[in-house]
Amino acid sequence: MKENENITLEMGGGGQKSAELIAEIRKVIKDVGKWKNTQDDGAVFSLGNENLIFTTDAFIVDPIFFAGGDIGKIAMCGTINDISVMGARPIGISLSIVVEEGFPMEDFKKIISSINKISKESGVPIATGDTKVIEKGKLDKIEITTAGIGLAQNVIANGGAQVGDYVIASGDLGEHTVALLAKRFNYKTKIKSDCQPFNKIIEKVGKYLSACKDPTRGGLAANLNEIADKSKVKVILDENSLPYKKEVVAMTELLGLDKFSLASEGRFIATVAPRDIKKALAILNKFNKEAKVIGRVEKGRGVYLKTELGGLRKIEVPRGKLIPRIC
Amino acid sequence: MKENENITLEMGGGGQKSAELIAEIRKVIKDVGKWKNTQDDGAVFSLGNENLIFTTDAFIVDPIFFAGGDIGKIAMCGTINDISVMGARPIGISLSIVVEEGFPMEDFKKIISSINKISKESGVPIATGDTKVIEKGKLDKIEITTAGIGLAQNVIANGGAQVGDYVIASGDLGEHTVALLAKRFNYKTKIKSDCQPFNKIIEKVGKYLSACKDPTRGGLAANLNEIADKSKVKVILDENSLPYKKEVVAMTELLGLDKFSLASEGRFIATVAPRDIKKALAILNKFNKEAKVIGRVEKGRGVYLKTELGGLRKIEVPRGKLIPRIC
Repeated sequence: MKENENITLEMGGGGQKSAELIAEIRKVIKDVGKWKNTQDDGAVFSLGNENLIFTTDAFIVDPIFFAGGDIGKIAMCGTINDISVMGARPIGISLSIVVEEGFPMEDFKKIISSINKISKESGVPIATGDTKVIEKGKLDKIEITTAGIGLAQNVIANGGAQVGDYVIASGDLGEHTVALLAKRFNYKTKIKSDCQPFNKIIEKVGKYLSACKDPTRGGLAANLNEIADKSKVKVILDENSLPYKKEVVAMTELLGLDKFSLASEGRFIATVAPRDIKKALAILNKFNKEAKVIGRVEKGRGVYLKTELGGLRKIEVPRGKLIPRIC
Repeated sequence: MKENENITLEMGGGGQKSAELIAEIRKVIKDVGKWKNTQDDGAVFSLGNENLIFTTDAFIVDPIFFAGGDIGKIAMCGTINDISVMGARPIGISLSIVVEEGFPMEDFKKIISSINKISKESGVPIATGDTKVIEKGKLDKIEITTAGIGLAQNVIANGGAQVGDYVIASGDLGEHTVALLAKRFNYKTKIKSDCQPFNKIIEKVGKYLSACKDPTRGGLAANLNEIADKSKVKVILDENSLPYKKEVVAMTELLGLDKFSLASEGRFIATVAPRDIKKALAILNKFNKEAKVIGRVEKGRGVYLKTELGGLRKIEVPRGKLIPRIC
């Protein structure tokens, strides 16, 4: 990255340029002390008999209200889910809000109510918070940052996938991005954001997962490449079992988007050993009938789609212009 | 707070209106689960043999570079210090950055370096993070939210002050606000921001403090009223021992500000039992010769300044227009 370069939107999109910016930051901030898994969804600190998990996420979603949720709901779900994919039980959330002067109190209260609803639904309390107000015109409405703490006996690491494992999705993907874009473009669709906390699902199924991630920014493409890379394996997706609804695929074709980079905010993908796959799917299907096997883990590197005709198409980490402000 | 009201700058200033907004939020988000001290600088979660402390702070400081620091330094110090005043040892920080498209990479790197410097100086690692980019014109340059985790054997609560205790300041106050305003108004002064992490000072002196707070937004006036209120005591400040430098007082007079509401970002005030005061001051003076007794705790309620002539002037929680974006 050159000195005279400026920050670009792509650097926040969750794709290749995001990874490069984070690498730049970690080139300077190298020392992580006793923390482990600092490149995973949550960092891990051993307390001796159990592990502390710590994660954070900033939300600048546009629009702030959309079908199936709002910025408050997504800020809660994003952090609860990042703790959950590490195999941890979330114990508390910090809630930091920066709001523009003149923001309607009624909307503010709606967002706070939405945050409270997810806190109750997930059983994860707001432990601490901060609220700042910025002059009118200096922020687009509202920004929320949540951080979260979890406790785990056994950590699920991004690098835990094993050759022979099944790849599963906890439900259909990409509905969060589609719901947001539909609202932006005033496009009619039945699709709602998939935004939801899934800590209670992981509580039941976590012990069967060898690796787990939630496909937010960068979607399935970014997630699977990260798992393949960190686990030093190859992932083969089956084109006949892709976890996308027809309406979602139609919307991506209409807008010229890549479905593999669409974001979800209430789904996870995971790898499961063959001995556990039946038990894992039985649990997952109690929560969501769409949960299914979408691929396998093999020897090698990279992520590939096995087409109906038997060909292999490489699924790359998303590059270039990604949709901004979906989370 | 009325439904048709809008968010105002005062609601983020750290004074009376801020307290009202937080009260509104806590009216909705009531359930804090097993967390305690959720109205203190950090919330407390018992792990059995020790306590977890959790805190967060959003920083929208303007200007982002100033004499004695920058937004990165202040974001680190603010959170490290909020954990420290709870009597805890900070073990990790989460770093969430929202940056405007087009922000110069050189400035971004300066801020990251500054964050790294404080991380090394304080011995508190960055465990996890998130970086988002927002379209040009949708944010004033950069916003940073840090959250932090600490571990404490014995928690220092805001409500721990006892009748008879001394009130101390760890150094002169208000220099952070003055340095920021000087940069904004292009006013020449030797005053630099007092921004610094004080976790290593608290490590030594913490055991002698019955209550402790860092006078950021709302300054000494907000801090002491909170301690007096939560501890159900009266605080009497001595006019002859006020912790303000001449240049700081001159600047407040020039700008018509109240010195008692000026923010510091590297100082704390605390209460200390008479039996410990000599030991506490001896330790504090090793770090800063300005550390001194500034008042006493008595029976009653409220915060008062004892004037040279023996009169008592009430020091209220700051109301109305506070300086925006000092932290």
